[in-house]
Amino acid sequence: MIIQCRKNISESQIDRLAATCEGVVVNYDSNVFVVTPSALKAVDAQFDSIIDTSWVMDSDIQLSSRKFKSDTRKINIGKCTTGGNQTLLTIGPCGVESEEMIEQTAKLIVGSGLSTIRAGAFKPRTSPYSFQGMGEEGLKLLARMREKYGLSVVTEVRDSTHVQMVLEYADVVQIGAKAMYDHGILRACGRSQKPILIKRGFGTTLQEFVQAAEFVLSGGNPNVLLCERGIRTFETKSRFTLDLCGVAYLKEYTNLPVILDPSHAMGYAYGVSDLARACMAMNVDGLLIEVHPDPSVAKSDAAQQLNHDTFGKLFESLKPIAAAVGRTIV
Amino acid sequence: MIIQCRKNISESQIDRLAATCEGVVVNYDSNVFVVTPSALKAVDAQFDSIIDTSWVMDSDIQLSSRKFKSDTRKINIGKCTTGGNQTLLTIGPCGVESEEMIEQTAKLIVGSGLSTIRAGAFKPRTSPYSFQGMGEEGLKLLARMREKYGLSVVTEVRDSTHVQMVLEYADVVQIGAKAMYDHGILRACGRSQKPILIKRGFGTTLQEFVQAAEFVLSGGNPNVLLCERGIRTFETKSRFTLDLCGVAYLKEYTNLPVILDPSHAMGYAYGVSDLARACMAMNVDGLLIEVHPDPSVAKSDAAQQLNHDTFGKLFESLKPIAAAVGRTIV
Amino acid sequence: MIIQCRKNISESQIDRLAATCEGVVVNYDSNVFVVTPSALKAVDAQFDSIIDTSWVMDSDIQLSSRKFKSDTRKINIGKCTTGGNQTLLTIGPCGVESEEMIEQTAKLIVGSGLSTIRAGAFKPRTSPYSFQGMGEEGLKLLARMREKYGLSVVTEVRDSTHVQMVLEYADVVQIGAKAMYDHGILRACGRSQKPILIKRGFGTTLQEFVQAAEFVLSGGNPNVLLCERGIRTFETKSRFTLDLCGVAYLKEYTNLPVILDPSHAMGYAYGVSDLARACMAMNVDGLLIEVHPDPSVAKSDAAQQLNHDTFGKLFESLKPIAAAVGRTIV
Amino acid sequence: MIIQCRKNISESQIDRLAATCEGVVVNYDSNVFVVTPSALKAVDAQFDSIIDTSWVMDSDIQLSSRKFKSDTRKINIGKCTTGGNQTLLTIGPCGVESEEMIEQTAKLIVGSGLSTIRAGAFKPRTSPYSFQGMGEEGLKLLARMREKYGLSVVTEVRDSTHVQMVLEYADVVQIGAKAMYDHGILRACGRSQKPILIKRGFGTTLQEFVQAAEFVLSGGNPNVLLCERGIRTFETKSRFTLDLCGVAYLKEYTNLPVILDPSHAMGYAYGVSDLARACMAMNVDGLLIEVHPDPSVAKSDAAQQLNHDTFGKLFESLKPIAAAVGRTIV
Repeated sequence: MIIQCRKNISESQIDRLAATCEGVVVNYDSNVFVVTPSALKAVDAQFDSIIDTSWVMDSDIQLSSRKFKSDTRKINIGKCTTGGNQTLLTIGPCGVESEEMIEQTAKLIVGSGLSTIRAGAFKPRTSPYSFQGMGEEGLKLLARMREKYGLSVVTEVRDSTHVQMVLEYADVVQIGAKAMYDHGILRACGRSQKPILIKRGFGTTLQEFVQAAEFVLSGGNPNVLLCERGIRTFETKSRFTLDLCGVAYLKEYTNLPVILDPSHAMGYAYGVSDLARACMAMNVDGLLIEVHPDPSVAKSDAAQQLNHDTFGKLFESLKPIAAAVGRTIV
Repeated sequence: MIIQCRKNISESQIDRLAATCEGVVVNYDSNVFVVTPSALKAVDAQFDSIIDTSWVMDSDIQLSSRKFKSDTRKINIGKCTTGGNQTLLTIGPCGVESEEMIEQTAKLIVGSGLSTIRAGAFKPRTSPYSFQGMGEEGLKLLARMREKYGLSVVTEVRDSTHVQMVLEYADVVQIGAKAMYDHGILRACGRSQKPILIKRGFGTTLQEFVQAAEFVLSGGNPNVLLCERGIRTFETKSRFTLDLCGVAYLKEYTNLPVILDPSHAMGYAYGVSDLARACMAMNVDGLLIEVHPDPSVAKSDAAQQLNHDTFGKLFESLKPIAAAVGRTIV
Repeated sequence: MIIQCRKNISESQIDRLAATCEGVVVNYDSNVFVVTPSALKAVDAQFDSIIDTSWVMDSDIQLSSRKFKSDTRKINIGKCTTGGNQTLLTIGPCGVESEEMIEQTAKLIVGSGLSTIRAGAFKPRTSPYSFQGMGEEGLKLLARMREKYGLSVVTEVRDSTHVQMVLEYADVVQIGAKAMYDHGILRACGRSQKPILIKRGFGTTLQEFVQAAEFVLSGGNPNVLLCERGIRTFETKSRFTLDLCGVAYLKEYTNLPVILDPSHAMGYAYGVSDLARACMAMNVDGLLIEVHPDPSVAKSDAAQQLNHDTFGKLFESLKPIAAAVGRTIV
Repeated sequence: MIIQCRKNISESQIDRLAATCEGVVVNYDSNVFVVTPSALKAVDAQFDSIIDTSWVMDSDIQLSSRKFKSDTRKINIGKCTTGGNQTLLTIGPCGVESEEMIEQTAKLIVGSGLSTIRAGAFKPRTSPYSFQGMGEEGLKLLARMREKYGLSVVTEVRDSTHVQMVLEYADVVQIGAKAMYDHGILRACGRSQKPILIKRGFGTTLQEFVQAAEFVLSGGNPNVLLCERGIRTFETKSRFTLDLCGVAYLKEYTNLPVILDPSHAMGYAYGVSDLARACMAMNVDGLLIEVHPDPSVAKSDAAQQLNHDTFGKLFESLKPIAAAVGRTIV
């Protein structure tokens, strides 16, 4: 249940309501909300005088539900405002590997008229014997691209030991598929106001995925985007299975902008362009595509990154599809 | 291994080759092929004089492989030729329920300028206590629509007890997701020359899916289409998970036309239009969409069928996307 | 809803009830039942005089539900009666390959004091280029083992083109994982009184699995056994994933004897013995284990079959576990 | 590749080897190892003089592989030594809820002659509106049980913000299914010498699961146990699917003790006893079972916890099965 309190109610009264309902106090704009477990369907009459409006909910998808807020959230990422008719196209390599390669990427982005760069500095590898990313050095290189080229930076936090550092450098903090249950990260992001892009875990139900967003939203940060990047199924010819049925669900029932990542889903460059066009036709708020100046030498995800030439052709082919669904690519 | 025999080789010589290689003899056009288990990588020199060409294969995806035949198969379905730049849009209700409703459907199809009707007469329900279809009576109603409106008929065979009957009435025989391992059906279809549309089982790997096509192809019928309709995963918000990564694989590695069925994947009408547009942008050879004059009274799949009005809007929105990927809808 | 009719009600009255309720008429022993879709929760009062008892059901798991019949069904298979404290241990090769090898198997079984032999004559291979089984010749060899050694024969039907033939030769008809949705097979088995062992499809929910049994039960055959043999998951180190949680469900909610097949689940001989002991400790009605005189030359499933020596050791180790759960192995 | 260096080699020489091979330096007992990516199959001859032994590996399962160390690791947990013929039976509630209930649990454990208590103080809930655990207060209550009753304490770390705190209070640190990719936790645990029990993520392959152990092992902590607790599949009648085929794999290929958790897999108390007996018959090193004085009032996992009476009966029934597989329960 979401309870919007009347204006000018004292903190202690709100705390008493929250304590009684086992609820969380959330401040948005100039309003105060108490969000309780969704199992609660009514509040004791003694609190009537402090309640402005309330929404009874079916599940713990609450602040992200269209029942609470029917329009998609408008979230500003540099020159792009998601939640309307703009689609954010964010590209870049899997990981920052050197200044030279990240600058080549930045130039491609600027040359294409796009506005954000994405790359990882902390790589959540499953093996301790693989490249683990450049760490803070990588973040600094990304920040330099922002200064030099005016690009917004999307980069990933791997665990809660460095979440403050990433929050300082990034314009959009990405919480990766393996980190999206991490309370340490989710709570730190909830205390920020920066846009948070949460990737769906590959073994994560849609219910759990949106509930991860609820951790950030109920922490006080209204700027959350959801990213579908493929789930793990029995099929092994592709790396993961991109769940567009799930995207249809997210668009229907949640008020969060939806981003799609066909690169990680497919795992092979050959399928990425077809999938990216399909994603655009799904009428979503963003696309995330891995692009590398020379994928054959990439230190991670070598098989799935597009080279600049292939990306260029894909980009041209996305434009008429964007137009067909009433969107512009930013 | 696929072995193409020279012209004018006697049947007994070919049989001896086939017996030695544990291969299957396949007649296509005026050529004779022997297809052996893919584990075989070379043939004894004694057979050199009867072999024209041969293809060594990695797996039992052989006659359907682009290694054997690099172009997509051209298969004629009434006014549509799949495998080129036409996309077959075939619509209709889950099951034939009465003459009146199937005629309403036929009129919608004709009015839209489309060319095929699809509906089931034998329903492969998982419960014995659900509607099982009209049987031969349903086939007769579909045949009447063909006579009256010039439509091609796509309909499903449930098990091998009635496969001959369906082969007689249908223009395209659909083998459903639950029947696609059925040797009785696959072999009967292999002895026909009618187009066979095989739906992927919801628990079926792409390897097994294409191998089902190999049963039909090696039986002597070159006209097989593959239909992805969603696989079963841990996610339950949608009925199944449409596997577009798998479609990218099928397009890259097989020479069979690919059809997509977003209706069964989603299981709910609300997501079908977005998904159908995504499928069109995947640049595939066909779309199969469930449409019913009044879904609320449908005897099966009530939740996922579009009404005629919603379909009309979807159809208009598909056209610019088809144009963007260089296709016309037939 | 299951409706048990009073004695001495005319057929036409029962048919009228069945027609009104869209129900199926089922004869068991000397009773007549009408089984309706489970959505029906009450019957019109006009039928009161012909109804003896009725059971309202939550889902189409009806005749197999413990709500209808609380005890596990007693089903006789040669010397074994399942459903009590006997556990049927049925072993044999994946497929009948020759008289010599099947006789070696028969001798092992007799020497171990066991009572049934299992082997396939019609193999439901996923590739048309693999060994497809010996067909009727294989059935004859199995029948010879019955005559010579007094063994009961468990063998598989692949599709409905040969279901009558298998029903004639077999003591227990196995419906394989790929055939369990086949209405042609299920209905033919429903018209027999022979025990039918249904294997769960690897992409099949428990609900659908039990509903397949309902097809046979509602056809008039009360002798159905369920066999769990592994489901398809994202894990590829084993061939399938044996679902013992599902077995716990089947034991709790259904009245059908449960058989376990660790060989197909694991796919590798090394894990079969540990798993077989676990299965025995699950306190189930039967175990099905693949054993071959020389697995290295087997024409199918070579990797997972145990040799006779390994089976002997396993058999000894099963006995104390059977004793611990109050069972004897037959 | 694992390289064991000779004794008395200088640190700088070892660092040069590690740098050249992109390897990690690991100290075990009085030996120094360099573990490189498994893709490396040979080392330059210049290093011959500092290499004692080396193991070439197929995958990044290295320190945990039976190829490196063929015996199961002996790990001491209070009175129990895993890796031999003792099976650790660790029980307790999902979460610590109060001193009274945790003391009731402690008394049950002592009364049963068992040696460890398990309960969570930091609960990794998927909803922000659910009970999140007692935090440090819960850890203190567990520590009190250790002092008072001589029990070893198994408790869970949720994220890396409190990993040091948990390392101080616990005898065994449990890394939960949702946290097992967390580099912050894995690395902190690698710097400790305490036993670390890693639970398999529900969407995690066996390869990734064992690689999580490699993070801890290569950090310098040789004391890692693996816990299978069910994976997420399409089946929804149980909460998860316990993967005993996967356990067979872990036992065959890794040198880590294996623990099984039937409670989380099943999700319902009714199946836990049957499953626990099956797990014991799998001949594993430990069982983890959720037990609560009154499950009906539990603040989390209410459906799956056993009450004390049911646990008592289960415990008695486990003993003869343990005996059958040559084990004693500790």
